[in-house]
Amino acid sequence: MKINLRHLSNSGKSASRQLLKATLPAVCSLSMLTSVAIPAAQADEGMWLFNALPKKQIAQKYKFEPTEDWVNHLMLSSVRFNSGGSASFVSSNGLVLTNHHVAADTLFKLSTAENNYNENGFLAKTLADEIPATDLELNQLISIEDVTARVNEAVKPQMAPAEAFKARQAAMAQIEKESLDKTSLRSDVVTLYGGGRYHLYRYKKYTDVRLVWAPEAQSAFFGGDADNFEYPRYCLDVTLFRVYEDGKPAKIDNFLKMDPTGAQTDDLVFVSGNPGRTRRILTADAVEYQRDSGLPRTMNQLRRREITLQQYGLAGPEQTRRGRDDLFGVQNSRKAYTGMLAGIQDPSFIESKRNSEKELFAKLAADPKLAPLAQAWETIREIQIKRKESLLKSASLRTQLYGFAEKLVLMASEDKKPSNERLREFRDSARQSLEQELFSEVPVYDDLERALLTDELSRFMEDRGGKDPLVLAALQGKSPRSRASEIIANTKLFSASARKELATAGLDGIKNSQDPLIALVRSMEPEYRKVREVTEAIDEQERQAYAKVTEAKFAVGGDSVYPDATFTLRLSYGSVSGYESNGKAVPAHTKLGGAFDHEASHLAKDPWVLPKSWHAAKDNLQADTPFNFVCTADIIGGNSGSPVVSREGAMVGIIFDGNIESLTGDFYYTDKQSRAVAVHIAGVLEALRSIYQAGHLADQMGK
Amino acid sequence: MKINLRHLSNSGKSASRQLLKATLPAVCSLSMLTSVAIPAAQADEGMWLFNALPKKQIAQKYKFEPTEDWVNHLMLSSVRFNSGGSASFVSSNGLVLTNHHVAADTLFKLSTAENNYNENGFLAKTLADEIPATDLELNQLISIEDVTARVNEAVKPQMAPAEAFKARQAAMAQIEKESLDKTSLRSDVVTLYGGGRYHLYRYKKYTDVRLVWAPEAQSAFFGGDADNFEYPRYCLDVTLFRVYEDGKPAKIDNFLKMDPTGAQTDDLVFVSGNPGRTRRILTADAVEYQRDSGLPRTMNQLRRREITLQQYGLAGPEQTRRGRDDLFGVQNSRKAYTGMLAGIQDPSFIESKRNSEKELFAKLAADPKLAPLAQAWETIREIQIKRKESLLKSASLRTQLYGFAEKLVLMASEDKKPSNERLREFRDSARQSLEQELFSEVPVYDDLERALLTDELSRFMEDRGGKDPLVLAALQGKSPRSRASEIIANTKLFSASARKELATAGLDGIKNSQDPLIALVRSMEPEYRKVREVTEAIDEQERQAYAKVTEAKFAVGGDSVYPDATFTLRLSYGSVSGYESNGKAVPAHTKLGGAFDHEASHLAKDPWVLPKSWHAAKDNLQADTPFNFVCTADIIGGNSGSPVVSREGAMVGIIFDGNIESLTGDFYYTDKQSRAVAVHIAGVLEALRSIYQAGHLADQMGK
Repeated sequence: MKINLRHLSNSGKSASRQLLKATLPAVCSLSMLTSVAIPAAQADEGMWLFNALPKKQIAQKYKFEPTEDWVNHLMLSSVRFNSGGSASFVSSNGLVLTNHHVAADTLFKLSTAENNYNENGFLAKTLADEIPATDLELNQLISIEDVTARVNEAVKPQMAPAEAFKARQAAMAQIEKESLDKTSLRSDVVTLYGGGRYHLYRYKKYTDVRLVWAPEAQSAFFGGDADNFEYPRYCLDVTLFRVYEDGKPAKIDNFLKMDPTGAQTDDLVFVSGNPGRTRRILTADAVEYQRDSGLPRTMNQLRRREITLQQYGLAGPEQTRRGRDDLFGVQNSRKAYTGMLAGIQDPSFIESKRNSEKELFAKLAADPKLAPLAQAWETIREIQIKRKESLLKSASLRTQLYGFAEKLVLMASEDKKPSNERLREFRDSARQSLEQELFSEVPVYDDLERALLTDELSRFMEDRGGKDPLVLAALQGKSPRSRASEIIANTKLFSASARKELATAGLDGIKNSQDPLIALVRSMEPEYRKVREVTEAIDEQERQAYAKVTEAKFAVGGDSVYPDATFTLRLSYGSVSGYESNGKAVPAHTKLGGAFDHEASHLAKDPWVLPKSWHAAKDNLQADTPFNFVCTADIIGGNSGSPVVSREGAMVGIIFDGNIESLTGDFYYTDKQSRAVAVHIAGVLEALRSIYQAGHLADQMGK
Repeated sequence: MKINLRHLSNSGKSASRQLLKATLPAVCSLSMLTSVAIPAAQADEGMWLFNALPKKQIAQKYKFEPTEDWVNHLMLSSVRFNSGGSASFVSSNGLVLTNHHVAADTLFKLSTAENNYNENGFLAKTLADEIPATDLELNQLISIEDVTARVNEAVKPQMAPAEAFKARQAAMAQIEKESLDKTSLRSDVVTLYGGGRYHLYRYKKYTDVRLVWAPEAQSAFFGGDADNFEYPRYCLDVTLFRVYEDGKPAKIDNFLKMDPTGAQTDDLVFVSGNPGRTRRILTADAVEYQRDSGLPRTMNQLRRREITLQQYGLAGPEQTRRGRDDLFGVQNSRKAYTGMLAGIQDPSFIESKRNSEKELFAKLAADPKLAPLAQAWETIREIQIKRKESLLKSASLRTQLYGFAEKLVLMASEDKKPSNERLREFRDSARQSLEQELFSEVPVYDDLERALLTDELSRFMEDRGGKDPLVLAALQGKSPRSRASEIIANTKLFSASARKELATAGLDGIKNSQDPLIALVRSMEPEYRKVREVTEAIDEQERQAYAKVTEAKFAVGGDSVYPDATFTLRLSYGSVSGYESNGKAVPAHTKLGGAFDHEASHLAKDPWVLPKSWHAAKDNLQADTPFNFVCTADIIGGNSGSPVVSREGAMVGIIFDGNIESLTGDFYYTDKQSRAVAVHIAGVLEALRSIYQAGHLADQMGK
């Protein structure tokens, strides 16, 4: 996988992200407690909270116990890309190291038909050459506070699910607002353990972020879609940004030192990053729903989008460029979902899950105080049936412009309410991020929007049926293609200033707008709100049920449980180690020189073509420099760009992928063959110096 | 479109063909009367029966009335590729001209990793160099006889649908058997007008068919998937075969003369070929079913297969080669279906269909004898609901090997019954074609079969749910991937002789077979038979209803109605004429020299790369030779390779595509922008002489 969260996230912005957001409303909005179904006593399982690390467990296995300072320094050195990825501070003067594929969204937005930074790479020779990113927001986690009691206080037992949901949301928004007012830090209440715990996360935000260096896509994504999720690998999947404050490089106190000699076989390593979503807490019934309905539907939609983008790209090289970022993301997700689905289609997985549920039920039944908790599994079973029934009822389309229009229309009404009664994305504490998204000058291409809107109108008709009043209203008697052409020809939303103007005009402005896309969203709004209310009520019911599941698991399994991933900072650990595949040993490391052999063994055919810069530098390169390596740390989409650090807390690598065996990680962890894949920091430094004439950057790193 | 029937046919053999066969059980097995919804008084609409040509209509518009000899000569000069396409005899010594993409199936089967005829082309310098095709069967239509009365006699009014279906099938098989015994000709009873008429078609079969010449795929499919269904075009989409009898080139009495000066703008032209399937008779309710359920489901399956084949091809150039034929077919179908669905998603189409139904109902109501016929529309409406309910219930997998296994298992039981009680494909009169399919030494690739079987097992689980007993039995506790690997590693069905051995071993042989694929089919057989019986009963009900619809339309519309396409020989006509697209005039013709301009305007990037042979010949070519042209004739998939003839009956071109506007042709004809696309015969002859050093073949043509 490209373990980029971009296409698995519900915080994203692009059409593809919306695709998945809309597809998996419930799952994306739930964070869940890990299952104890897969015994993992000695395995390196877990995406641990920074305020609840399994220090004893690590010490027992690896004879190393992280100190408080060690943990705090790593937390403050870690960076979250709000667009869906991880990173770290790597110098005192603001350098941030992440993956090329995490940066791709920005590279793509900065590129034009003439300057294709995504394909051809970029190097700023001086600070003045560094290019401001269009709409990036980087987050540095500052503190974590448990607010469970206060959130739960707001919800009274007699409340109906919809009412309970609103009360809970209001309490969370209130806590966030108070924190923002008090600290001026971004303040998010995070739902953990599927509703078992609520923690307040405070972040320092960086919004002046500049591009410093990126290699060519040919090197970052060497082997392309074919090698994606495979190992051995030879990818320089890294990019450097720099954060600025007050127009100057930010002064960073906590950054990582470099250790190019680290990450040797069997070394203990840590991964600090933001895994996006796992669903290990799911009950067997909920997994079966995903297997038989949820994932197959998502995959149909991904395939559909993939074909649509491929077809769009056939029109010419410029169209290929325009569609590539989305296409890449969709292909990556499709491959990841294929692996996930394959994992839960294995009958033995469900069987083992059912068996451990039986064991758990027996333990609960033995204790009269715990016995009632078993009801939660039944509730969840019933909820899956409701989910299946409401599967086709979405009232939204997935294109970039439609997304803008939808936000503008909803915002106009939401802003009339007090902040803590609004739909969550419109609360005051999230306003700055929302405005950055809506008002940034990002490129939006009319022909791409037309192709996607045509396909989306067609899908909408297929989903709801051709007689559906909402569909008929959307089409206005025209075919999806003519209607899409008409809308795209007449909407003003391509322009950031037009979007800003509409946002400023308030509810009257929206009501009176003649923009056809605004009008389309207006016609969908009542149904959209209805669907969302129903979905959120189901989510709330499920949240309450999983809170009970959590309670049961805490009661039986002790406190050695970590919550499912929630795109918040987590620590994973493991050892650098190869594995066996089809009876052959796969070593843990590859070397820089191996990239040339890999190219030759594929006859240098696309996508196995190294860039010219590599061939030019071949004779100067230290060919035996470690390049990529694998370890057993437990990661998932969103961990892309996470620093890999040694027990000394120094950087030894940067996560960029997981092997194909790791794709079941959404549902369960195993260390038999599943591995996280990283670029070795020695390879990064050597490439900067010997291939990219960027020794000055290598010199800054770690200092 | 590539208007090759291969991927739209129910007579096909490959996995992709099976894909569509299984997807559209009802629609494929029904032939239907054209709708009178779209008024086409002066338009060149219609795929006319050779024994019921609209001679007066043609004479009125074009001042030309075909004589009986003219018609008979054209019928006997026309050739059907049983693998799914059309062609014609073009010399007295057995030359047959068809499309490269019709020949692709054969070119692919004759190719190896070393000799890739499909990509690189082929030329036999002498008769001795001509290569026997693996499993081709060519049909020459000899006679047509109306057997409606005899077929209908067998069906008694009191019979239940399943019983009626069996009685009808038995009568048809009996007629075919008697004809075969009497004439030794292939004898097919064809269902026309959705069950309104039954005609007996007798064919002379040619099974010794040899490859003579094919151009490179780069030239035949110049512009690739991007240009497919577009116009202007520059494709040499032709291939020459030769039929043999007794080891010598067959002596052909009826073949087409060449007219390289023909097909000028506004000329009347005729197209004689085998359109595969249209559904113009469908009632508005039936179209709505296709719009909301049938086509969307088919498209999901096509996209799925397309992605699976793309992923398979990523493994290397040899995998790309192995998967290309299927991938091409699936992409072609997906693009065609996209156009079809777009056509019926236009609300104005359904509206006009409903309006003309209302008019028809009014006329029926006015005549007490006709009034009861209106009930047929209600029956059809009810049948659509049944179809929707039974949509996911298939009990078959779509891979080449599974197809072999399924035929072998069914055949063993079927052969115990009298011929006319068997499932239709196992009747005696079809045995020779079936055996050619089963026992030919066609290449089957284990890695491709494994990839497809994995995906099919996964789909099967998605369709029926993971708890379905049939799914559990198929997987035997393993994941789709492990189970597919196990089956492919152990089945013997890759070998034609093993298949023959199993076929010879009869029912006991099948029952005792340890072959895992045979065992898998055995476990599916009862459910497969059940599903098929239910589907065929629904089909029979629909057939009886459409027979009434036909009766109603004949009563109201007179005899100027043609039946929907049935992959049997039809005559279409029209004029050579350009059209308007996006406000610009598209001329009817392109010229050979234009191919080089087309290449240059796309920077000679794939797929716009002309082969070396073209560049080498560029200076010798007559650049202004007509190359491709369009006409208004009414065609559809299956017409690929159809000769285009002048009023003198001479060949002026060969159909190879339809433009994007023609894709609605499945449901309705319009001549506003919709056009059939042909290679001009002048271009073919010039290319043979000046590019391919095949003047000796050009000299034989027409003589």
